[in-house]
Amino acid sequence: MSTSVKSNTKIEWGPRIDLSKVSDVFAPQVVPEFVPPTPGIDNLGITSTDTFMIPGKGEIAVDFSGYVRVARSQPTTGDWVTAEVYTNLIEMRMYGESAETGPIIVTLNTDCLSTGMLRTPWADMNCAQPEKACRMAVSAVFDLPSLGVKLVNKEPILLTIDNVRAIPPSGNPGKGQIYQLLPLYNSNDVDGAPAAYITALKFAMGKYLTPEELKALQH
Amino acid sequence: MSTSVKSNTKIEWGPRIDLSKVSDVFAPQVVPEFVPPTPGIDNLGITSTDTFMIPGKGEIAVDFSGYVRVARSQPTTGDWVTAEVYTNLIEMRMYGESAETGPIIVTLNTDCLSTGMLRTPWADMNCAQPEKACRMAVSAVFDLPSLGVKLVNKEPILLTIDNVRAIPPSGNPGKGQIYQLLPLYNSNDVDGAPAAYITALKFAMGKYLTPEELKALQH
Repeated sequence: MSTSVKSNTKIEWGPRIDLSKVSDVFAPQVVPEFVPPTPGIDNLGITSTDTFMIPGKGEIAVDFSGYVRVARSQPTTGDWVTAEVYTNLIEMRMYGESAETGPIIVTLNTDCLSTGMLRTPWADMNCAQPEKACRMAVSAVFDLPSLGVKLVNKEPILLTIDNVRAIPPSGNPGKGQIYQLLPLYNSNDVDGAPAAYITALKFAMGKYLTPEELKALQH
Repeated sequence: MSTSVKSNTKIEWGPRIDLSKVSDVFAPQVVPEFVPPTPGIDNLGITSTDTFMIPGKGEIAVDFSGYVRVARSQPTTGDWVTAEVYTNLIEMRMYGESAETGPIIVTLNTDCLSTGMLRTPWADMNCAQPEKACRMAVSAVFDLPSLGVKLVNKEPILLTIDNVRAIPPSGNPGKGQIYQLLPLYNSNDVDGAPAAYITALKFAMGKYLTPEELKALQH
């Protein structure tokens, strides 16, 4: 099972990429450093360690692995220093499990368009070859089938990657910008009080996948 | 001019407070420490220093002052340690100016419901009288009349206050949790590329206002 972004999402955190104008990019790829990339849809592995506070169960850190598909815009300029690149996270599936929760499957919340961008930090605009900063605002569904509950975030989960020398930042570590807590809501009572919280999140972008590897992860 | 939250907002960052069940709270008030408060709508002063990066104009720090009206829920328990309190920012107006931009008037974006909560940090749940942490996800409109532009955020601006000993945290300093940048969009091209960015934000909650002081600030 996988989820893809819908064209009629009611919430968009940022600019939408026209998917009719971008093609899939699979392994093998050699991505040059410090070069604004041609647009595409990157099919990449991902690993993540998310820490949840679940009332009655306490704080639980869960290791996830899976894949993402990220659409990238045409860079705004042909120059690495000044170019901004906009991104949409159009598909995601990560799997993890813990003794307290059983399996957890993380996919995109298709009610929202998860968006991001890469650009040079303002302080580095005078560098010849600056490292870029990447940010992505994500709406996810955390499916906990053993507990019979699906959790969603209503504020975006902000994922950031620094020291980006190539786009995509394959292999780079990143961090969820969680300040104390990010509330999660029961998808059956999305207007109710928070049902759980994310308290910390770190992740790493993986390598390009082959079509076969993607298909295996999309099961 | 002021803005009030609409009942038909399409985006809600968190739980909505039933405004029919809460009454205005004005100066003078004596707010006891470490006591879960009765629900209400706090009418408070606020000051803020927001730093913007505006392409073509550079990085500009602007001092604002004005007011907020914050609706507070019934605390989830009668015990200070375990109580969660949910909040809605239902009205805001702040004024500031700079040589580069002229006046800037900040109000709420009524397409969204700006929401927040106060709770005890997990690490302090065993303290007898912990200080609580406050967070609020805000959707704002930055009106720059001299430039003929209104800017809006699409990801929430996350405002946080720590060391909260009384609710509301009148007089407490707070911080916008901005990682590198938060994109702002031209309200006339809200689906377009970012038009400017917030790069830093710090603020302080003011004192309770009298009805006359509120009215003067709502002009």
